[in-house]
Amino acid sequence: MLTYGMIGGGIGSYIGDVHMHGAEMDGKAKMVAGCFSRHAEKNEESAKYYHLEDKERIYQNYQEMAEKESVREDRIDFAVVATPNNSHFEIVKCMIEHGIAVMCDKPLAISVQEAEELERLAEKHHVKVAVSYGYTGYPVIRQARCMIEAGEIGSIIHVRATHVEDWVIESMPDEKPDRLPWRYDPKIAGDSLCTADLGTHAEQLLVQFTGLHVEKVISMTDRYPTYLSGETNTTVLAQLEGGASAMIWASQIAMGHACTPGIFVIGSKGALEWRHEDPDRLFYTPKGEPTRILEAGREYMTADSRRLTRVSAGHHEGFYEAFGNIYREFIADLEAESEGHTPEHMIYPTIRDGADGVRFVAACMKSSREGNIWVSLKEKD
Amino acid sequence: MLTYGMIGGGIGSYIGDVHMHGAEMDGKAKMVAGCFSRHAEKNEESAKYYHLEDKERIYQNYQEMAEKESVREDRIDFAVVATPNNSHFEIVKCMIEHGIAVMCDKPLAISVQEAEELERLAEKHHVKVAVSYGYTGYPVIRQARCMIEAGEIGSIIHVRATHVEDWVIESMPDEKPDRLPWRYDPKIAGDSLCTADLGTHAEQLLVQFTGLHVEKVISMTDRYPTYLSGETNTTVLAQLEGGASAMIWASQIAMGHACTPGIFVIGSKGALEWRHEDPDRLFYTPKGEPTRILEAGREYMTADSRRLTRVSAGHHEGFYEAFGNIYREFIADLEAESEGHTPEHMIYPTIRDGADGVRFVAACMKSSREGNIWVSLKEKD
Amino acid sequence: MLTYGMIGGGIGSYIGDVHMHGAEMDGKAKMVAGCFSRHAEKNEESAKYYHLEDKERIYQNYQEMAEKESVREDRIDFAVVATPNNSHFEIVKCMIEHGIAVMCDKPLAISVQEAEELERLAEKHHVKVAVSYGYTGYPVIRQARCMIEAGEIGSIIHVRATHVEDWVIESMPDEKPDRLPWRYDPKIAGDSLCTADLGTHAEQLLVQFTGLHVEKVISMTDRYPTYLSGETNTTVLAQLEGGASAMIWASQIAMGHACTPGIFVIGSKGALEWRHEDPDRLFYTPKGEPTRILEAGREYMTADSRRLTRVSAGHHEGFYEAFGNIYREFIADLEAESEGHTPEHMIYPTIRDGADGVRFVAACMKSSREGNIWVSLKEKD
Amino acid sequence: MLTYGMIGGGIGSYIGDVHMHGAEMDGKAKMVAGCFSRHAEKNEESAKYYHLEDKERIYQNYQEMAEKESVREDRIDFAVVATPNNSHFEIVKCMIEHGIAVMCDKPLAISVQEAEELERLAEKHHVKVAVSYGYTGYPVIRQARCMIEAGEIGSIIHVRATHVEDWVIESMPDEKPDRLPWRYDPKIAGDSLCTADLGTHAEQLLVQFTGLHVEKVISMTDRYPTYLSGETNTTVLAQLEGGASAMIWASQIAMGHACTPGIFVIGSKGALEWRHEDPDRLFYTPKGEPTRILEAGREYMTADSRRLTRVSAGHHEGFYEAFGNIYREFIADLEAESEGHTPEHMIYPTIRDGADGVRFVAACMKSSREGNIWVSLKEKD
Repeated sequence: MLTYGMIGGGIGSYIGDVHMHGAEMDGKAKMVAGCFSRHAEKNEESAKYYHLEDKERIYQNYQEMAEKESVREDRIDFAVVATPNNSHFEIVKCMIEHGIAVMCDKPLAISVQEAEELERLAEKHHVKVAVSYGYTGYPVIRQARCMIEAGEIGSIIHVRATHVEDWVIESMPDEKPDRLPWRYDPKIAGDSLCTADLGTHAEQLLVQFTGLHVEKVISMTDRYPTYLSGETNTTVLAQLEGGASAMIWASQIAMGHACTPGIFVIGSKGALEWRHEDPDRLFYTPKGEPTRILEAGREYMTADSRRLTRVSAGHHEGFYEAFGNIYREFIADLEAESEGHTPEHMIYPTIRDGADGVRFVAACMKSSREGNIWVSLKEKD
Repeated sequence: MLTYGMIGGGIGSYIGDVHMHGAEMDGKAKMVAGCFSRHAEKNEESAKYYHLEDKERIYQNYQEMAEKESVREDRIDFAVVATPNNSHFEIVKCMIEHGIAVMCDKPLAISVQEAEELERLAEKHHVKVAVSYGYTGYPVIRQARCMIEAGEIGSIIHVRATHVEDWVIESMPDEKPDRLPWRYDPKIAGDSLCTADLGTHAEQLLVQFTGLHVEKVISMTDRYPTYLSGETNTTVLAQLEGGASAMIWASQIAMGHACTPGIFVIGSKGALEWRHEDPDRLFYTPKGEPTRILEAGREYMTADSRRLTRVSAGHHEGFYEAFGNIYREFIADLEAESEGHTPEHMIYPTIRDGADGVRFVAACMKSSREGNIWVSLKEKD
Repeated sequence: MLTYGMIGGGIGSYIGDVHMHGAEMDGKAKMVAGCFSRHAEKNEESAKYYHLEDKERIYQNYQEMAEKESVREDRIDFAVVATPNNSHFEIVKCMIEHGIAVMCDKPLAISVQEAEELERLAEKHHVKVAVSYGYTGYPVIRQARCMIEAGEIGSIIHVRATHVEDWVIESMPDEKPDRLPWRYDPKIAGDSLCTADLGTHAEQLLVQFTGLHVEKVISMTDRYPTYLSGETNTTVLAQLEGGASAMIWASQIAMGHACTPGIFVIGSKGALEWRHEDPDRLFYTPKGEPTRILEAGREYMTADSRRLTRVSAGHHEGFYEAFGNIYREFIADLEAESEGHTPEHMIYPTIRDGADGVRFVAACMKSSREGNIWVSLKEKD
Repeated sequence: MLTYGMIGGGIGSYIGDVHMHGAEMDGKAKMVAGCFSRHAEKNEESAKYYHLEDKERIYQNYQEMAEKESVREDRIDFAVVATPNNSHFEIVKCMIEHGIAVMCDKPLAISVQEAEELERLAEKHHVKVAVSYGYTGYPVIRQARCMIEAGEIGSIIHVRATHVEDWVIESMPDEKPDRLPWRYDPKIAGDSLCTADLGTHAEQLLVQFTGLHVEKVISMTDRYPTYLSGETNTTVLAQLEGGASAMIWASQIAMGHACTPGIFVIGSKGALEWRHEDPDRLFYTPKGEPTRILEAGREYMTADSRRLTRVSAGHHEGFYEAFGNIYREFIADLEAESEGHTPEHMIYPTIRDGADGVRFVAACMKSSREGNIWVSLKEKD
């Protein structure tokens, strides 16, 4: 059983619960430490909520956690970072420097400079860092990856990836509000609103599904309600490594779509399609044949996909279980490392992916600002 | 935090995991005792798997658990029964007699006589018994119940409830196998195959969704593969209390349908429809108006339904979370009892529902045997 | 080019238009005669509406049409009967006796006695009679029939066929109306409301899709609004020839379902499913494999199905075109007859099917009246 | 009854049939003249196929038709142009100059210069020219237009319009074929393959649905199979008049999608969505409320939409009927003109729309060629 400490994610925090459920779903990890809030009282209440038994391991802040945990015999195996975006950099940096593996909520950081420094540090210190792009954990997404790697749809020609929601337009008043929550404050959340919130999910869905990375982008953004400082709808044209093209769409104002990531991949020999509305199914069209509906957990699925399924076919798994799969792979990787071997076909969003996500957002913002021109993810801002 | 002991559900048991996840999902209950298997070694391994810390509370059998737990200061608050069907009666009886509340896997028992004895005993001993019909735990099913109770679809005219799967036909060889698993053995699983396995889920879905009970049935069954001793497809005509009619369909051979419970309710002022394929949505058609798609977690949902939603709208919850809601209600009921008050609008399948399920199956079997005649659920077999 | 005369279907008649479009869709038949109404003025206006050029062939009544047409050199090749239900018998009888082929709107007649007399007469006079069950004309229904005949789903075990609408509940006032339209008058429309209107469509969908006939039924009916004299919701258990079972559901009060025939067939080697909401697609699940979505007009479809498709794959065909296929087959059959050969795999609802439909409705009504007992379609009422 | 002459669309021509069915569906127009092919024999056979009775009105070529028809007492009311793309210009020009109204198959022309000359000529000669973008004829598209004009979704923020098919990838050999059909020859079909074939359908769907026009575009194209000379997949970013943004996607290689136009419009007060897979339904989400499914032909639909519905709600209408609606509006417009009044809310794709379609394709091609830069539809090529 691995142990972990949580930073942020205090009582009442939606994402803290999601991380805890994901991490502990398989009975392979247990929270033993935490610093949930800078407010002492809330910190204690949160520790109680999470049933932390050892008072000594309830820390005032992340630095204290890193320092004290890193020298304990029974030190935590990893830290979970569930704080607001602008603090990710310093926290992850501190954990890496203390040799503690990290599961960081997305985005990894709010600037490319920060993200790339973390990449360098993680490599230097040989510390594993994962970024929790939860939607990529569904078993049929692994199925698609396996099929693409096995050449079942031939070479990829074009990809459509989306992540559209409607929470901003549904929760914003029509008139300008007196005060906006911090999620809308560029100082805390970063310059980008929709692209950083959802566009990066779509981009990572593309990466984890196909195994391909984005090389350059043209981005067009919309801002509504207009009193917000950031964009709420982003459409991206992209070039992928190897020459395929892509369209990526993210929206926070797509009324009627509470949460609908999705992806459609056209290859030379067939196509694959997944929609989050129907998370257990993968639509596979071999060229010249009828579309097949592949269902998670069925015997005809690849072993790799079935490994990520907990319930019988037709019984749904949801957001918690998808998160659980990101953790399952990360934990297996940590275990394998500690046992000195390399795990087989283990896939989860790594620090490379997290940094790519930040580079993607920055490139999109630059393209929008500069008249919707091509911007490479390798360009320095 | 309540505590519980598990009976059955040993390592490798699919349903044991489901119960554990359901019970512990909200951090309000913890397994502290168990007797998972009659094989000492498997019992111990299972205890380890579930992280039972106190060796003394790993029991040889359910009688020992009942006797020893019932006299402990820190006695368990409830027992979870996850054993094969034919043992439910004796175990639940024993728990009731020792004053221990029970969450019993469905079916409650394999004969009406047994089920009704348990009903009488539970009442006599004032012990709460729940039956884990997991599919009824989805938040939109509570939404439907609220709307029906509020009169939004008027008086109910007709109901269609189904639970169809294909696991039997997909897993059975075309030729008669040398030996069948115990699930197909009438001595262990009971006389009925499909009706007891899935028909009772459809019947309880109807009950929990509408609040109405089944009064009498005509049942027609099919048996395929023909070497099985029990039916694998059941169609039921039913009369409900208050005069509405219903059709209930259960199947284990509905190829292409891995697990598709569903319900459609026609009232005098509107209709409601739910399909397990799309577990977060409820289709509501007010008379004379367009159909509306109600989504779990949206602000327009009733407080009672939103209370059962853990994630934001559009983020899926699956079988574990639905099970978690059955436990959430059961645990809240136990807590309320211990605090001496009555909880508000708490709904879960009770021992009455469990006994109804058994009566439903028995009536269906009798109707089929006797030429598809009407059989009342009140008839003694 | 064949010619035909229409009886009924005058201006403002919805079904007259549907028949005309169906008959003339392929440019192989042309209306040249008609008696559309007993009201001379409306009769003339209707003739104008349908562009009848020859005044002599606008008849006062069907008898006149039969007498005069049957002795013309250029006599009509067939008559279309689009009058209220209770007149079908006398009109079809008259046409048969004058040797004129008939396309009769469903139902063929309103009593079994009438239907069976027509069957006998048609055989005696060697006159072809078709009954326009329009929904059975979709190309994917022929695809299913071909696949079943080729053994692709093995032997049929169980069938579910439905035809549910909501037009009665949506158009009826909540309070009893002063006067009801003739469609609700049992003297004109027959005793049965929903079963004759829609149940027979579901039954014929089953017959044309599978090639199997219904042998006996148990029927349960509901009546709502209660001031109507006939049933508005019917659920039927059925035994089919060869031993398979079936469930047939028809409704006029299924709010949210404007018109949703559908069928699901379970065979020993696979299953087939069709829903009218998605009329161009057939869902095929071979045992042990993923469900395939077969689309009308695709190259992988059988020649027999593709023959019934007019547009490219993905381009919808609707009710007119489905009707057009019933006519296409009927016309080809008439042409083949006149050329002295037998056409290949030509399928349309014949007088046998029409009489079966009437027998089905009568058996359902009897079963409902007599306490939901089994009634054979061969029983005399 | 109006009369028309057809140019092209000879026997075996798929689109000729579609035009004839569309034009004659409502019994308001009849083909009386035609020049179907330059091959005399095929011309005559086609005339027979279409039942042209008057031999004198079977013409050798379109010039002859224009000259002779324009001086007849009973001259045709309009001409239907169903020839290959590169001949549209000269034929439409000739008809306009002879004062004959035109229904031209899309695209109006293969260059902007041609299209704009036709626009000028049509205005100068006061001749009505329609362009048959058939998919825009579905009744729910008119419903959407009515709702948008009535302000029901507020001001439009963003639009997604698509038209994706898979016919090219499904019909092309993997290896380069010896000879390609004329549809792939840029001299006959124009420079653009996919954008002209399908992109312009998506663009016109956007225009007819929202009432807004495209002002400028960035376009990215893919070419597969690579031996083709034109693009087979096009993604477009667009600015619309009034400031909304749009994404338009057209594909000929979207395997699994035989023909799936679709549109999603986000307004400040609600959203509207339509998918061709489900052509009779419109999804309407008012801000803060559940999505409603609006169905063609229901009583709650606008009078304007119901006017375009021929069958009862739930009964499908397909491609023929959608085409029939384009013709219905065009014919009503011609009739109104001849009667000297202006018809109410009559909408069909006019010569302005046809020329916009050509400008859209040209701008997309230029943007792709020049590195995916913004190109205005007003720019001269």
